[in-house]
Amino acid sequence: MAVFHVNDCIRKTKQGIPLTAAEIGALVRGITKEPLIPDYQLSAWLMAVCLRGLTDDETAALTMAMRDSGQTMHWDMLGGPVADKHSTGGVGDKTTLILAPIAAACGIFMPKMSGRGLGHTGGTIDKLESIPGFSTALAPEAFLEQVKKIGFAVAMQTGDLAPADKKLYALRDVTETVDSIPLICASIMSKKLATGADHILLDVKVGSGAFMKNDEDAAELARLMLAAAKADGRDCTAVLTDMDRPLGMNIGNALEVLEALEVLDGDTESALGAFCVTLAAELLHMAGKGTKEACRAQALQAVQSGAAMERFAQMIAAQGGDPRVTENRSLLPVSPCTRTVKAERGGWIAAMQSEQIGRASVLLGAGRMTKADSIDPGAGIRLTAQYGDKVAQGDPLMTLYAQKESQLDEAEAFLRGAVSIAETEPEQRPLIRKIYSTGDAT
Amino acid sequence: MAVFHVNDCIRKTKQGIPLTAAEIGALVRGITKEPLIPDYQLSAWLMAVCLRGLTDDETAALTMAMRDSGQTMHWDMLGGPVADKHSTGGVGDKTTLILAPIAAACGIFMPKMSGRGLGHTGGTIDKLESIPGFSTALAPEAFLEQVKKIGFAVAMQTGDLAPADKKLYALRDVTETVDSIPLICASIMSKKLATGADHILLDVKVGSGAFMKNDEDAAELARLMLAAAKADGRDCTAVLTDMDRPLGMNIGNALEVLEALEVLDGDTESALGAFCVTLAAELLHMAGKGTKEACRAQALQAVQSGAAMERFAQMIAAQGGDPRVTENRSLLPVSPCTRTVKAERGGWIAAMQSEQIGRASVLLGAGRMTKADSIDPGAGIRLTAQYGDKVAQGDPLMTLYAQKESQLDEAEAFLRGAVSIAETEPEQRPLIRKIYSTGDAT
Repeated sequence: MAVFHVNDCIRKTKQGIPLTAAEIGALVRGITKEPLIPDYQLSAWLMAVCLRGLTDDETAALTMAMRDSGQTMHWDMLGGPVADKHSTGGVGDKTTLILAPIAAACGIFMPKMSGRGLGHTGGTIDKLESIPGFSTALAPEAFLEQVKKIGFAVAMQTGDLAPADKKLYALRDVTETVDSIPLICASIMSKKLATGADHILLDVKVGSGAFMKNDEDAAELARLMLAAAKADGRDCTAVLTDMDRPLGMNIGNALEVLEALEVLDGDTESALGAFCVTLAAELLHMAGKGTKEACRAQALQAVQSGAAMERFAQMIAAQGGDPRVTENRSLLPVSPCTRTVKAERGGWIAAMQSEQIGRASVLLGAGRMTKADSIDPGAGIRLTAQYGDKVAQGDPLMTLYAQKESQLDEAEAFLRGAVSIAETEPEQRPLIRKIYSTGDAT
Repeated sequence: MAVFHVNDCIRKTKQGIPLTAAEIGALVRGITKEPLIPDYQLSAWLMAVCLRGLTDDETAALTMAMRDSGQTMHWDMLGGPVADKHSTGGVGDKTTLILAPIAAACGIFMPKMSGRGLGHTGGTIDKLESIPGFSTALAPEAFLEQVKKIGFAVAMQTGDLAPADKKLYALRDVTETVDSIPLICASIMSKKLATGADHILLDVKVGSGAFMKNDEDAAELARLMLAAAKADGRDCTAVLTDMDRPLGMNIGNALEVLEALEVLDGDTESALGAFCVTLAAELLHMAGKGTKEACRAQALQAVQSGAAMERFAQMIAAQGGDPRVTENRSLLPVSPCTRTVKAERGGWIAAMQSEQIGRASVLLGAGRMTKADSIDPGAGIRLTAQYGDKVAQGDPLMTLYAQKESQLDEAEAFLRGAVSIAETEPEQRPLIRKIYSTGDAT
């Protein structure tokens, strides 16, 4: 290719002229490799992307280049279908804790790389670490052995996976260039593709508390992510999930493990349980385990038979945790101070501000605002009413858990207005708004 | 004001939400003062400005804040009208060398801060330094004394004037964020307002070789600059000048001094001479010297009487130069190697690519591509035909001057296509396209 000039790339994107794959490759190379592109040029380019967009080809090229900025993983040695699952960040989202054991019980390998929570959304690593003794610091050999034997393992994502994304994300965070759908696609998919799974399930959250505020944006993100997966020869299914309410009833680390255990105990009728069974069916179907109906039956069977719970217990034990929590829930930490938030008037619950509820759980100690903050595994919120429920004045809406009364005061004040109570029953809104798949006829 | 967050400013501009004057003030403060705003945030904001624009109020606030980022000058001690003139950067533009002596002869003070040339446009400092002995390194006291006595002085612009502009411009240059009309306005006017003149004449170049490529953009820039001047209580007149041709016949430092001397000798009928008389009339009128017609007569009289030339000679002498150049032109340097470029076919000169001609003069040694380059004061181009002239095949179009034959070769090759010859006579196009003034009824 011709000599690479960063300025040409900035100018073209600013003017809406598409970059070639070679230009995007050179741009991404300069994020982590010498000669480094100065941050001030990258941030100008990022802002131009936010305001001018990228074409589908540019987005795919950006995703691939970021995937190749570090280590890429391969799982041929497992000799079976390898799946991965990603959520764009929800409140109360403990899906992985339920989905991975089900998938493992059904013969799917899930070598899972996860992160810690930040801001109002939690992280799978934090949730699992609330189990006494549990560790996510696995050596690569131990990780591989565990996946082979149990079907899944959960390790901390390392800096070697898509390091260009890590650096670019840090820059986007301080330059107001996070909310670009092509950039979000490249950020998520570069890591997912580097992780090496053949079948990728994406849970795209939609609503006031999510990155994607409306169905159109969420559908656009799903479309771009599917195109990137397809361009790399992977199967991909994207589920658009309503985030105008938290997922399930518990928010907080041990509280969410508890709720996941309730589903694995057999509670597949709750909103969370039904949601996880549908996700599991989509994943099994994508991995060639039969029709969607047959896959749903396999998933339900994995729960009802106790096979999924057994896998979960094995995984906990393999990662140093106390597997007895699967039977004795009192082994999970619970913060000592509690408070019940009550309905100020009677009516129907018409809306729940999930971001506000997520932020309140951070105030209670369940999450962190900066990476350096420590968290309280037993803190959080337990909802006692949900969207569409009818409540009388004074009925409990939720219970708060924290270490100190002052945290309860702060969270309670912050929660004012988080639950809207209407005089009429709100319309039924499905939790899953839409499902897109690379297997769909186009 | 509330606590200042850079991210809020970036986000607002990105979303098209106007910033308050306080927010813009804080942003500009962070360009040069601790705590400094990181370049990557400034460049993201600059790109957002390029693609989203600024309101008139924001542009005025940005201009004022940048004006106040360093020293601001005051000229009350002169006890008379103080004027300044700025050109947005032309090829062959030696207007200041003619206008300042005329204005001085008519009782207007012009304490002039100028810069060196860079790229295809020349600088007044370089032109004056082609006069043997001439120096623009004046101590503030000497500068003031000279303005008092002779009416004008030309000194190198210091870093103390609008330092925020200097830093922002360097960042814009490497982030493709130069071509924003509000940013161009703030850059020019912050320095002009800091210089302290009451009456400001702006020469806005329009055309292929200029920043402003079309009349609409030039009119918009003029409108914004006038508004900023008005907001600061100054008089301002903006003249839109055609830059689809060089200004006058000579391009190069000593060559341009020579042409300026020809006008001051009495050649007010040439395109350049007539242009300068019109500019002088606008300046005098703005400074309250009478009607435009009366002012035009005063300007003509200043030239015809030799008073303007006398002021020029006094200024040269005061700044260490040899004033005899005003009478003996052979004291000016001329580069030894010359070449005549001839018309390849007969017809009318229908266009001249002024940027290309400017760049050719740089190749000849008359300008610099980087700030570290040295220049040859005797190099340049002398046009022997101009827009609208009829030429026969083989007629001379221009003469090139340089130190080496190889420079002539290079410039001649580069000039191919710079002069378009058509079979029909082109339409007459006035050099001045439009004049706007703060004094106009709005």
